[in-house]
Amino acid sequence: MGDMDGVMKRLAVLGSTGSIGRQTLEVVRGFPERFQVVALAAGSNLQLLAQQAGEFHPRFVWAEDLKGWGRAGPEPLPLEDMAAHPEVDLVVVATSGKAGLAPTLAALRAGKRVALANKEVLVMAGELVIAEAVRLSAQAEAGRHRATILPIDSEHSAIWQCLEGEGREGIRIILTASGGPFRDTPLEELAKVTAADALRHPTWQMGKKVTIDSATLMNKGMEAIEACWLFDVPLERISVVIHRESIVHSLVEFCDGSVKAQLSWPDMRLPIQYALSYPERWPNPTLPRLELSRVGSLTFQEVDWQRFPCLKLALEAGWRGGTYPAVLCAADEAAVGLFLVGGIAFLDIARLVGEALEQHHSISHPSLEEVLAADEWAKGTVYGLASRLPGKDKGRIRSRDGFVAG
Amino acid sequence: MGDMDGVMKRLAVLGSTGSIGRQTLEVVRGFPERFQVVALAAGSNLQLLAQQAGEFHPRFVWAEDLKGWGRAGPEPLPLEDMAAHPEVDLVVVATSGKAGLAPTLAALRAGKRVALANKEVLVMAGELVIAEAVRLSAQAEAGRHRATILPIDSEHSAIWQCLEGEGREGIRIILTASGGPFRDTPLEELAKVTAADALRHPTWQMGKKVTIDSATLMNKGMEAIEACWLFDVPLERISVVIHRESIVHSLVEFCDGSVKAQLSWPDMRLPIQYALSYPERWPNPTLPRLELSRVGSLTFQEVDWQRFPCLKLALEAGWRGGTYPAVLCAADEAAVGLFLVGGIAFLDIARLVGEALEQHHSISHPSLEEVLAADEWAKGTVYGLASRLPGKDKGRIRSRDGFVAG
Repeated sequence: MGDMDGVMKRLAVLGSTGSIGRQTLEVVRGFPERFQVVALAAGSNLQLLAQQAGEFHPRFVWAEDLKGWGRAGPEPLPLEDMAAHPEVDLVVVATSGKAGLAPTLAALRAGKRVALANKEVLVMAGELVIAEAVRLSAQAEAGRHRATILPIDSEHSAIWQCLEGEGREGIRIILTASGGPFRDTPLEELAKVTAADALRHPTWQMGKKVTIDSATLMNKGMEAIEACWLFDVPLERISVVIHRESIVHSLVEFCDGSVKAQLSWPDMRLPIQYALSYPERWPNPTLPRLELSRVGSLTFQEVDWQRFPCLKLALEAGWRGGTYPAVLCAADEAAVGLFLVGGIAFLDIARLVGEALEQHHSISHPSLEEVLAADEWAKGTVYGLASRLPGKDKGRIRSRDGFVAG
Repeated sequence: MGDMDGVMKRLAVLGSTGSIGRQTLEVVRGFPERFQVVALAAGSNLQLLAQQAGEFHPRFVWAEDLKGWGRAGPEPLPLEDMAAHPEVDLVVVATSGKAGLAPTLAALRAGKRVALANKEVLVMAGELVIAEAVRLSAQAEAGRHRATILPIDSEHSAIWQCLEGEGREGIRIILTASGGPFRDTPLEELAKVTAADALRHPTWQMGKKVTIDSATLMNKGMEAIEACWLFDVPLERISVVIHRESIVHSLVEFCDGSVKAQLSWPDMRLPIQYALSYPERWPNPTLPRLELSRVGSLTFQEVDWQRFPCLKLALEAGWRGGTYPAVLCAADEAAVGLFLVGGIAFLDIARLVGEALEQHHSISHPSLEEVLAADEWAKGTVYGLASRLPGKDKGRIRSRDGFVAG
């Protein structure tokens, strides 16, 4: 048990106006005696940030553009400084893309626990981040391995819960994937699907970027890479199974063949609360209860690799390591951004990411600067490739070898 | 971690020629460096006992009738003495009926760990047995609550595995039941089913008594009572769900609404090995691996209470406590024995058990002698009631109130 268990936890919530940030504050609202919100950081939604600040009275705030912010109330403080501030115990990193990277490193270096919802942090810079976490863990008196990073993703939370009290030797991880809105769409129709189609996720309410990544299964590939870092499991011991109902959030197989699974209705407040309450669990009557007989049936099927080329690309990038995963994230961010505004077709996401990976010259054991440079390079490359895409023949850009993109 | 972890465990296997006993020795055979078999006790199968003794070279053996046993080889020693012998660390209680009761108490009193497969031990005398286990646990240096009884039943093993590393406050237990061979049989045909029909269990290979108890769901009611004692959870927080595939062996819901499940192919060697290897897990390539995409679908449905009156009777007996659960076990043992030899009809099992419970005068906080007296009384009562059953009108015996028997 850490030193802050049983007392009030002092939080910085980075990305407080996004989907995970808002749900984090909803959990916090239910336990006023457990939490003190010290800092809130938003992107561009100043209106909601002001409302949140009015309710939770943080000492610090930040947003992309704080010009409209009055002099009264909380002081502006950049994300990295929030994350490392002496008054903060636990940093919730609910930003997206590379925005969470530097604050996560700053928080770990300052000895904070990090509740991590920002997938790209570990995918892009897993080696750097885990090195900090392990260092911190080793310093802590009763240091649990890597317990300083508390995953908020439902899949990683499930794995973490299944691993409680268990050894990690010889485990296998089975990540579940809903398969997204296009799991049954005829393959020949995938070329024509729109952003609106892709945003209709069958089981989860999430931000736009994550929802598109669920439709391509890019998210599952990223989660596999994250799981490697979080749980110290090699990529070849991580598999993906399509589970339409999103009730089983992931599974762990132990060396004796026994499998443990974590289940709940799809509701992100549960993994958020688990990360915030860990190592305790707290009763929360507002969280929905699972009734298996009402669910009726839980189904599992193999991944159709032809349908989900982004999953293949992500696993391949994870295998190769170096700056390939950073390029994967950045290229995907750029491509999904273009798809959301109608700039490219759905299948172009995999094509552009595959081509960027193909063109990239990776650096082994990269520094933060090298990771960020790879990110910049990948985004530029995707925008360049996209601008040269012919209007009608989106199939022109093809990966040559190694990275097989659709 | 106990004092015997990492060194050879010295075993007494009580009931070594039964289904669980044979599978226990199969697990032991796979780990010759981990186990030494000190004692084997059988019922009437002297031939198999001799074969087992030839392979495992125990110091002691026992059987109902050892007259045919030669002078060379292992010495005869009664079960209670085996269970308490100084050379034994872990006693596997794989007997059935009340046979395991006195040896379990003797083992716990002598400070041994007990791997328990004999359902009736905790159902009949949970209060007595747990009192011994708690006393022993309190004496142990780093005593885990009730860790001296290691359950072998697949359901309790699942719950135990799900609870590893977790607190027990506010938990709910969900026991899964296959529903047995008659889960889809039209209710009006249940009166005519034979022992041969009942012994065709859809998912598990087990002994005859347990297989019939699976067909009536009596086993699930007994397991609910056992779970109360093993995990210190009140009966009202234990529920049963029909799960045809027997892949999810049971589930635990935590106070925050998160649910953990343990899964595997139905193979008793896994829970047996877990109890023997605990607190470790050992790789065993002979155990089948679960592939969810091959399973395809896991289904869950509510219990049809009309179909399974024995489950109701068992839960009612558990609620009332005292010597009612002992009467439940003994009456069921007698009735199932009669059914197996064609002496009564399938639906008479519930009728006879219900009537015995109805006629019983319970004693609160019974001693071992009072439990055994209730057992004798119940068997006699069932035989008496059965002998007065008219050949054609088996519906004559009906519970009057309270105990509702079909």
